[in-house]
Amino acid sequence: MRPPAPVILVDWGTTNRRATLVGPGGAVLGRVSDGLGVRSVPAGGFDEAVAGLRTALGDHPMLLAGMIGSARGWREAPYLACPVALDDLADAIVWVEPGRTGIVPGACVAAERGGPDVMRGEEVQVLGAVAAGAIPPDALVCHPGTHTKWMRVAGGRLAWFRTRMTGELFALLREHSLLAARLTGEAEDDADFRRGVRRALDGGDLLGDLFQIRVREVLKLDLGSPASFASGLLIGSDVASGIAAGPEGVVHVLGQPSLGALYAAALAEAGRQTLVHRDEPAFLRGMQALADRVLT
Amino acid sequence: MRPPAPVILVDWGTTNRRATLVGPGGAVLGRVSDGLGVRSVPAGGFDEAVAGLRTALGDHPMLLAGMIGSARGWREAPYLACPVALDDLADAIVWVEPGRTGIVPGACVAAERGGPDVMRGEEVQVLGAVAAGAIPPDALVCHPGTHTKWMRVAGGRLAWFRTRMTGELFALLREHSLLAARLTGEAEDDADFRRGVRRALDGGDLLGDLFQIRVREVLKLDLGSPASFASGLLIGSDVASGIAAGPEGVVHVLGQPSLGALYAAALAEAGRQTLVHRDEPAFLRGMQALADRVLT
Repeated sequence: MRPPAPVILVDWGTTNRRATLVGPGGAVLGRVSDGLGVRSVPAGGFDEAVAGLRTALGDHPMLLAGMIGSARGWREAPYLACPVALDDLADAIVWVEPGRTGIVPGACVAAERGGPDVMRGEEVQVLGAVAAGAIPPDALVCHPGTHTKWMRVAGGRLAWFRTRMTGELFALLREHSLLAARLTGEAEDDADFRRGVRRALDGGDLLGDLFQIRVREVLKLDLGSPASFASGLLIGSDVASGIAAGPEGVVHVLGQPSLGALYAAALAEAGRQTLVHRDEPAFLRGMQALADRVLT
Repeated sequence: MRPPAPVILVDWGTTNRRATLVGPGGAVLGRVSDGLGVRSVPAGGFDEAVAGLRTALGDHPMLLAGMIGSARGWREAPYLACPVALDDLADAIVWVEPGRTGIVPGACVAAERGGPDVMRGEEVQVLGAVAAGAIPPDALVCHPGTHTKWMRVAGGRLAWFRTRMTGELFALLREHSLLAARLTGEAEDDADFRRGVRRALDGGDLLGDLFQIRVREVLKLDLGSPASFASGLLIGSDVASGIAAGPEGVVHVLGQPSLGALYAAALAEAGRQTLVHRDEPAFLRGMQALADRVLT
């Protein structure tokens, strides 16, 4: 049986980290969320960065997941080959201090037609959402972001996934391309977004369709919302490939709500029903399930 | 009849310009090539920049084409709607000094399924290559570059075209993306380039296939030549869409030789024969044909 002591559960990414103090029954007792991502911690600085979390949240056992386990993180944790279950992650935790401070491994897929792939952090979220009953044991899951992950869950395990640079490419276009001056403002689920999605679903010519923003500017045609249109092209392209790789039926979108809503809209254009799940509770549920297994 | 006086023919782009003094019979008598593209000339500075060419090459009649005729150039010349012939370009030259200094118009296509499109400069090249007999009067032409243009020539006229951001996207990935550190070196027609092209021709998942470079780095797999692979994915994607829009048969590639060779290799993977033509002589041939019509 798990003792009633609280645990600190940490989602430590490239540019941000979020530590949550969770008490008996899953009650959230405290939180630290800041920009001290893996990229911002100097070499040799992780012991101190971790100690800072305990100073803030108390001297409790701690599990960490995400890029903290990568080569540029604190200690390198392995990538477990799919299919992966929560039990597999629990068994392969890399202990910095046994029973007290552990890093959760990532997941990988072996080379097949689309090639190999890797993830860190999303595997905890999706298996947490399955453990919570929010996502069924057999499902297609989309986790949108800088690097969007499309995942197949089978028999309650993470069976396969594929990463696309959808969010990163959008950021590159907004910040550095010839289109940058026209891609201000947020992408929204408006008529231009849907038009971009339909273009992408209807054959797809991403390199040409993006240039249409420039053409319309030069010809002084109505631009509408170029940011929404470009987002629609990219998310539509992502969705077209994503649903081609998965089973029929409801697509589960797991992530941050506003981006999740854009993916849900694109999936609706593709004729698919969606359920959108927030990523943070899924992460906590997965990490608690791991804590229950290893911190008893 | 055209007098035997020489003419200055100028290809003035966004980042470069090239002026050629051409004598009777097409003999090249002199050249100025520098980085004084339209973007580098301050507002109001074009008269001086043009005078500098005459100082270098002599006080001769001058025709200019390219971005010099855009809104950010010297004088705005129109975009002529396709189909466009050399006679149409000649009739619509915008004269800064009548009979002495003229700006050649660009070309545009009206909105159809893929949307409208615009070009400045390539229309002179392709019609010049047709006038020279290098490209037949009915052909599919690919003009690779930062913004690659695919053109249909019909009855000796530029009938339609479509622009893709192929080169710009490659530059964005090389300079600003997570992959940048792996995309050093030049793209070459090697096994990795061909692998990228085949991936693109065989279904196409550009956003996912590009991320494979990152995956292989993380998993410490053999990277091969990532720049060639990424170039193959992009050019392959461009070619897949490009040949879908044009007639069967030989594809004419018009451009700078090393990039033209990559497109020819990608087209060969797609089962298409190609003929590669250099852009500079095609431009001069087209401009001479215009000079013959208007500077007599």
